Amino acid sequence: MFGDLAGMMGKLKETQQKVEDTKERLNTVLVDEKSNDGLLKVTLTANRTLKTIAIDDSLLEDKEQLEDYLIITLNKAIEKATKINEAELAAVAKDGMPNIPGMDMFK
Amino acid sequence: MFGDLAGMMGKLKETQQKVEDTKERLNTVLVDEKSNDGLLKVTLTANRTLKTIAIDDSLLEDKEQLEDYLIITLNKAIEKATKINEAELAAVAKDGMPNIPGMDMFK
Repeated sequence: MFGDLAGMMGKLKETQQKVEDTKERLNTVLVDEKSNDGLLKVTLTANRTLKTIAIDDSLLEDKEQLEDYLIITLNKAIEKATKINEAELAAVAKDGMPNIPGMDMFK
Repeated sequence: MFGDLAGMMGKLKETQQKVEDTKERLNTVLVDEKSNDGLLKVTLTANRTLKTIAIDDSLLEDKEQLEDYLIITLNKAIEKATKINEAELAAVAKDGMPNIPGMDMFK
């Protein structure tokens, strides 16, 4: 019984380290997104840290349009980064979990 | 033995539902952030969906400054939302986990 528990604890610690390593690596994974007409471009990491925003001069003439462009393009970028982030962390977590059918809450 | 397994499966399903409900509720939790001088204000949900961006007219005169303001303020807002998001989901996941010491990888 205790052999199992020790083994499980070891596995958990290993998984915990893998989760941390994955989070670290996701800082280096870059996600690009741009508005349909390419006037606004953003880059962020798969940990959703914004790295660059490039605004075309023409967008500075209409503030409301610029604000809309920012919301639409940034939401697309954040969503893309979140998909990568969740898929990678779920894979690590699932790998570390005891194999119980139905245990896919982090799918 | 099988009684335990059935009980565990039930608990997992319950936790899975709670995770979904929490994700839904986080859509209604709003996070505000602004630049130190208040010239740029953003609002997003605790699921990191951008709702509003308000740019002061004065920022439209210097594109590079505006791009810097956006990166700094948005990163603060996303970080704030992520802290709320992770704390709430970790609490639900932890509540659903069997009580194994050291099992805090989603801390």
